[in-house]
Amino acid sequence: MERTNLYSVTIPPMIKSLEALSGLLEKMSKHADGKQLTWQPPKAQEEAFLQSRLIADQFPLVRQVQIATDNAKGAAARLAEIEIPKYEDNEKTVEELKARIEKTVAFLKSVKPEQIAGKENVKIALQYWGGKSLDGFDYVTNYLLPNFYFHVTTAYSILRKNGVEIGKGDYMGPLPLKD
Amino acid sequence: MERTNLYSVTIPPMIKSLEALSGLLEKMSKHADGKQLTWQPPKAQEEAFLQSRLIADQFPLVRQVQIATDNAKGAAARLAEIEIPKYEDNEKTVEELKARIEKTVAFLKSVKPEQIAGKENVKIALQYWGGKSLDGFDYVTNYLLPNFYFHVTTAYSILRKNGVEIGKGDYMGPLPLKD
Repeated sequence: MERTNLYSVTIPPMIKSLEALSGLLEKMSKHADGKQLTWQPPKAQEEAFLQSRLIADQFPLVRQVQIATDNAKGAAARLAEIEIPKYEDNEKTVEELKARIEKTVAFLKSVKPEQIAGKENVKIALQYWGGKSLDGFDYVTNYLLPNFYFHVTTAYSILRKNGVEIGKGDYMGPLPLKD
Repeated sequence: MERTNLYSVTIPPMIKSLEALSGLLEKMSKHADGKQLTWQPPKAQEEAFLQSRLIADQFPLVRQVQIATDNAKGAAARLAEIEIPKYEDNEKTVEELKARIEKTVAFLKSVKPEQIAGKENVKIALQYWGGKSLDGFDYVTNYLLPNFYFHVTTAYSILRKNGVEIGKGDYMGPLPLKD
């Protein structure tokens, strides 16, 4: 198997990015706890962050995280030609969102390289493509990666804009630098 | 050459995304022209857009576009092991930014698949990595693609937040859907 293949350019990078996203949410949760006022119900500030939007008619943070995980599990399942795990989309706390990310990462890790590498020609038809389809390669390069990083970036920007102490490195995650 | 290789997962997707970015700037320019007041100097509104930021201590639109193109030309040159084209970073108008994008796309198109495919082990050391390096594969998957899409998404969000009539499809560009 070539080192660069449809598995290696999708699944490990998305796992890494989802773990970075989980770290961003963790930092937000601590920041939000620090802003809680004594008379507020528990986690009121965290709830406000989860409902925050960058732009009024764009999805809030909670939905950005749901979509990023949907992109990831959908891609792994579609490329491997197995069933897409169904989630209820009912997360209300950072703890629940982190559990969703963890569940998604576990699913991604359960898919083996040989289930996805070589799937360039698998036919992928998303609901809202009106009966049309992309092949596996075009799906990954034209749709999946630009879309996945769009939602992780938007989640990052919502936190960043609201004062959570994060920087680009928290979005990127650690680089495997060598001497 | 395998269909999925270090060239095919980087250069054509970045060309497509840069062309989409050029389209976004075009729409912004028209929108800005429509907001011009009679007493303002020419292109005053467009200039305001180019200096707009999503977050006070984040780069403005003009710099987001410069960085996205830097990512693209830097990646093409580093992977192909040729000299990185130098730009002056002095763009002041959408016309100039679109010319920068066009120049970048032309450079990307001048690099041949066989110059990049198979470059998984080329050593890449960015200035701010303190003498450390990534190999070509880790550079593409851990650094280039997440970073490139970060800056294109941020450029999109700056325009979107400021009322330019754009949607996700303008960011993604056309999908090569088939019946």
